Amino acid sequence: MIDYRSDNTGRAAPEILDALVRANSGTALGYGADDWTARLQERFSELFETRVRVFPVATGTAANALSLAALSPSWGLVFCSEVAHINTAEANAAGFFGGGLKLVPVAGRDGRVDADELARALAGFPPGQLHRGLPAAVNLTQATDLGAVYRLDEVRAVAEVAKARGLKLHMDGARFANAVARLGCSPAELSWRSGIDILSFGATKNGGALCDAIVVFSPGIADALAVQLRRAGQVWSKMRFASAQLMAYIENGLWLRLAAQSNAAAARVAAGIAGIAGLKLVAPVEANELFLELPDGAMDGLEADGIQFYRRSATLARFVCRFDVTDAEADALVASLGRHCALPAKAAE
Amino acid sequence: MIDYRSDNTGRAAPEILDALVRANSGTALGYGADDWTARLQERFSELFETRVRVFPVATGTAANALSLAALSPSWGLVFCSEVAHINTAEANAAGFFGGGLKLVPVAGRDGRVDADELARALAGFPPGQLHRGLPAAVNLTQATDLGAVYRLDEVRAVAEVAKARGLKLHMDGARFANAVARLGCSPAELSWRSGIDILSFGATKNGGALCDAIVVFSPGIADALAVQLRRAGQVWSKMRFASAQLMAYIENGLWLRLAAQSNAAAARVAAGIAGIAGLKLVAPVEANELFLELPDGAMDGLEADGIQFYRRSATLARFVCRFDVTDAEADALVASLGRHCALPAKAAE
Amino acid sequence: MIDYRSDNTGRAAPEILDALVRANSGTALGYGADDWTARLQERFSELFETRVRVFPVATGTAANALSLAALSPSWGLVFCSEVAHINTAEANAAGFFGGGLKLVPVAGRDGRVDADELARALAGFPPGQLHRGLPAAVNLTQATDLGAVYRLDEVRAVAEVAKARGLKLHMDGARFANAVARLGCSPAELSWRSGIDILSFGATKNGGALCDAIVVFSPGIADALAVQLRRAGQVWSKMRFASAQLMAYIENGLWLRLAAQSNAAAARVAAGIAGIAGLKLVAPVEANELFLELPDGAMDGLEADGIQFYRRSATLARFVCRFDVTDAEADALVASLGRHCALPAKAAE
Amino acid sequence: MIDYRSDNTGRAAPEILDALVRANSGTALGYGADDWTARLQERFSELFETRVRVFPVATGTAANALSLAALSPSWGLVFCSEVAHINTAEANAAGFFGGGLKLVPVAGRDGRVDADELARALAGFPPGQLHRGLPAAVNLTQATDLGAVYRLDEVRAVAEVAKARGLKLHMDGARFANAVARLGCSPAELSWRSGIDILSFGATKNGGALCDAIVVFSPGIADALAVQLRRAGQVWSKMRFASAQLMAYIENGLWLRLAAQSNAAAARVAAGIAGIAGLKLVAPVEANELFLELPDGAMDGLEADGIQFYRRSATLARFVCRFDVTDAEADALVASLGRHCALPAKAAE
Repeated sequence: MIDYRSDNTGRAAPEILDALVRANSGTALGYGADDWTARLQERFSELFETRVRVFPVATGTAANALSLAALSPSWGLVFCSEVAHINTAEANAAGFFGGGLKLVPVAGRDGRVDADELARALAGFPPGQLHRGLPAAVNLTQATDLGAVYRLDEVRAVAEVAKARGLKLHMDGARFANAVARLGCSPAELSWRSGIDILSFGATKNGGALCDAIVVFSPGIADALAVQLRRAGQVWSKMRFASAQLMAYIENGLWLRLAAQSNAAAARVAAGIAGIAGLKLVAPVEANELFLELPDGAMDGLEADGIQFYRRSATLARFVCRFDVTDAEADALVASLGRHCALPAKAAE
Repeated sequence: MIDYRSDNTGRAAPEILDALVRANSGTALGYGADDWTARLQERFSELFETRVRVFPVATGTAANALSLAALSPSWGLVFCSEVAHINTAEANAAGFFGGGLKLVPVAGRDGRVDADELARALAGFPPGQLHRGLPAAVNLTQATDLGAVYRLDEVRAVAEVAKARGLKLHMDGARFANAVARLGCSPAELSWRSGIDILSFGATKNGGALCDAIVVFSPGIADALAVQLRRAGQVWSKMRFASAQLMAYIENGLWLRLAAQSNAAAARVAAGIAGIAGLKLVAPVEANELFLELPDGAMDGLEADGIQFYRRSATLARFVCRFDVTDAEADALVASLGRHCALPAKAAE
Repeated sequence: MIDYRSDNTGRAAPEILDALVRANSGTALGYGADDWTARLQERFSELFETRVRVFPVATGTAANALSLAALSPSWGLVFCSEVAHINTAEANAAGFFGGGLKLVPVAGRDGRVDADELARALAGFPPGQLHRGLPAAVNLTQATDLGAVYRLDEVRAVAEVAKARGLKLHMDGARFANAVARLGCSPAELSWRSGIDILSFGATKNGGALCDAIVVFSPGIADALAVQLRRAGQVWSKMRFASAQLMAYIENGLWLRLAAQSNAAAARVAAGIAGIAGLKLVAPVEANELFLELPDGAMDGLEADGIQFYRRSATLARFVCRFDVTDAEADALVASLGRHCALPAKAAE
Repeated sequence: MIDYRSDNTGRAAPEILDALVRANSGTALGYGADDWTARLQERFSELFETRVRVFPVATGTAANALSLAALSPSWGLVFCSEVAHINTAEANAAGFFGGGLKLVPVAGRDGRVDADELARALAGFPPGQLHRGLPAAVNLTQATDLGAVYRLDEVRAVAEVAKARGLKLHMDGARFANAVARLGCSPAELSWRSGIDILSFGATKNGGALCDAIVVFSPGIADALAVQLRRAGQVWSKMRFASAQLMAYIENGLWLRLAAQSNAAAARVAAGIAGIAGLKLVAPVEANELFLELPDGAMDGLEADGIQFYRRSATLARFVCRFDVTDAEADALVASLGRHCALPAKAAE
């Protein structure tokens, strides 16, 4: 079996578990008042080239929902892509933690929020109207939920529209590492320097184990968020074990190496299937995911070959590359896709 | 320095981290659809001698608040001890996850809910009244927040009063292991066989690292709770790393061995200070905590001796024993207490 | 000025205010424990030909949001029309009172939820999936937010799809009277006999003053709703003044007479403009509202003529007829529309 | 029967219903965009001698809960008297609308929050601690829930303690009129000039019918509250009928005349029973309520005499005077109390 089901089906990077185990010595104050968590603040501030507050949390869902709740009043509206993870896959955690805030889908290419579409949507909420709720924030998933990556100018275009109306920006960076690795920019450029106020900093999908993080760039938000996290059951008493994971994750560029590997695997598959007639990529492959429209019967064939993946619909399949996908595994996927998807083209000869 | 600040300042048991590391092989479906989590259901069902559902969660606060939210409508009242952790130390997580449910403190000895006091309190909420909210559940902290342990008959007496009014029972078992070890009863006897519907099964304070668990005995609650946990950001995508910790925690009786050790350390201290005139135990030492009224100046003296602990007020100090407190450390605490607290008695000579 | 802005800009029917004033004698227990409210239960039970519970509430928003919160857990999904009032005009009250429940828009003609589209949407939420939330209820606005009316078979078709998946049905009957008057059916047929579990029974838009009502057909819901209403600040202590209004509203068929009048006014306008070339009705006129696509400049012309209405977009205008719109006022609207909208057609000659 | 059960069992003042009926002419924009509501802003601003925002709402529960939600984040703590209406009689509406905010009872005399006790309570929440939630606001019930009235210096003492810690002040003025009438001060003195940020301005208990109001003194709160009210189903579309009631209520001092009448009735009873040995007033009679400890059997005797009242416990009875209690009715209560409560004293002779 070769597993392309998700990047969360995979192993943790050994460096991260090593760090967790190394943190198991001596005693340390609970709830984040330990040395590991203090150093984490320093290291993330260096990484992002500005003073940030970083809060380890258990899951990306917690990171996203609590970030949005920090940006929006409970009567607020959060604009996001129609296919955004927060809109399709988190059981409305944002609405729950946000006390009834509402997500408003906005159109865009390849899973993005398009700046012009956002402007058009906002025009439907003129200042002063009360009956539809108040526009409060914009959510960008980076990489997008279709495997594309916002370029810096695309983030900034959305930010400009948002800021003009006083909206805050949240980036769901479940695959932030993949996006940074793809763009070759700095973490700062892809976040606060482009207008992001708060970032869900994903680790789990990229070799992490049991934690992600929230990175706060707007200092005014952080103190309240700290209480909210406590109340949300997201503050481990033995926080050092979470902070140690996140330290190891960014140490010596590990996070970007891992992301580069999964990106490369996806790119290798994409290159390999470029000439197969029966296949259609739903979005460009810019991170570690491929979304493919497949011909009838192809999915069964792939599974018979031992390829594991998700069926998003009868004809749409998702393939996710983990950091430890080997070249041989990538080539096996290409070969299997060739076998089952190129057939109609051959039959047409 | 000798650390008696909390059981969450301590190390994890190495067996637990070993298991976490061993789980890092191969791929596994996310969000609890893995083999580790499936086996966890089996093992906990054996441990509790009935079919249970067990949900790993990040923190005890999450376990408590989500358990209560599962037992109570949002307009419900949850009765608990005045000093209950849910009432004094979780930033009203129960009220938040419960959509506005309200905690109602009930008097009792040594941090317990007293069955007669509960009956008296319930009499103030006659059936049919709407304006005070509806009695829905009772919370018991076991061991209590003053270091005492409910005996089985005490749990059952509360359960009888509660069930007579249709209320559900939640046990906050942050120190459930300590209570089971103390009583020498079975986990089943101390939970569902005594009327408990849902249990916060603590591991962190007793040698765990990054997870606790919710154990559901009433099957009707579990499916809804599963959705609620997802939405609450408490379902790790790489759940195996949590389930593996909990498996190791209960394997071969580790959890009870660890609890017996911390209980024994507290008992050793309690025995050692029995004759010191200036000291007053606020509650009997039945688990791993000591709450002591100390004479003026004693706290400073203890700290000067390198004893770390929490000041609960100007005169009340809390000392918590971890599973790895040594006899020498226990004796050092006794000696220091003797030095600083016995003085007034001598002065009285 | 002739006012077509909304049916809530209008007067109350004098019979209703008379009843309110007549209720001002003697003392009466508060919070609905009075004789007026007791009689209201009887009268509504007769009207609906079954035992119902009726709760007066201040607004239609409260009626809708609390009804949905009564049908759905907080992690539930409520399916509704894209243009449903609950989705576009109540500041996400449903999400707030529902503790984070989420609205899922479903396509349909003329503001309806289409049964087939609902089935298609539900297929995207297979039983057992947790990450999108759980389908819980369907909302139908009757008359729809585009002025159309569900026929009985259309309500039943939606109910059949919904019930097959265990979903409950809420009818937003802000214009329930208009729909009953239009269809000539009984209130029972248009509600519980067609599968409706709970009904927002509108009065304000149809000659009421300060209250609407929730009518509960499923007895299991009502007791919890009673507490929720208390907590929601929707239970007047001097409830008799609300109950008296609702009694007068349904007494001697007043509600249906008023609705027949506003329906007739809208029909008169619709008939009058049938031949005007520049006009396009967005939906059939089946209740008391007209939604018209108008040529450029026509809106300004209408306003210059003293016609008041809402601009829904640059080209879409809404005209709402109240129960006391006179034939002369209807004809004046027709004439003004003819003047400003027929011009292009003439110009084309 | 003579009704002392509550001030909400009574009639509305005819002037108020007259105004409501007079508002029923012509058309007016909905949701508070009408002339009546605009004039209400002006009149209340004059009454309070400062620019205020006033929002009519359906009930005192809504006024209280939404006011507190406006002052406190959802993780906030609101300090109040143990017997405060918000704590004992509103089904935790504050916790619900406040998204999980928590009430913290503070001791005090006669239903008051005592400034020193508040300071002591606040000391238990040192700045920087997160685990108990954040102190956010103080609630004062004026008149208190035991029928006493805060003097101006008492309000100011509480405000001083609160403001020193950055807390906001809410006054539950369900009987604000009775307090102003008692003290002979101005509404401004008893509210913003003494540090109150937001006021639940009660009308229902003092001759109103179907609405109370929220008066906002801190301008920064009002805009958000306006959205919250819309979402809470507390903004009538035909708002003029509510605003007209409130206008009439304050016009020509009606509200203070009514309150003076009910205060006088209570004072007449209090004076009449001054010499009865078997009676004990629980708190001084400073508004329109009497709380009396009665001897065994007295309650049955009173009821046999046709006196209606609430039994707060086996020995505690509450008597509330409405604005239209006659001298004869007051004297009848005194006589009945004399008959049934003086007996033991006679027996002692």
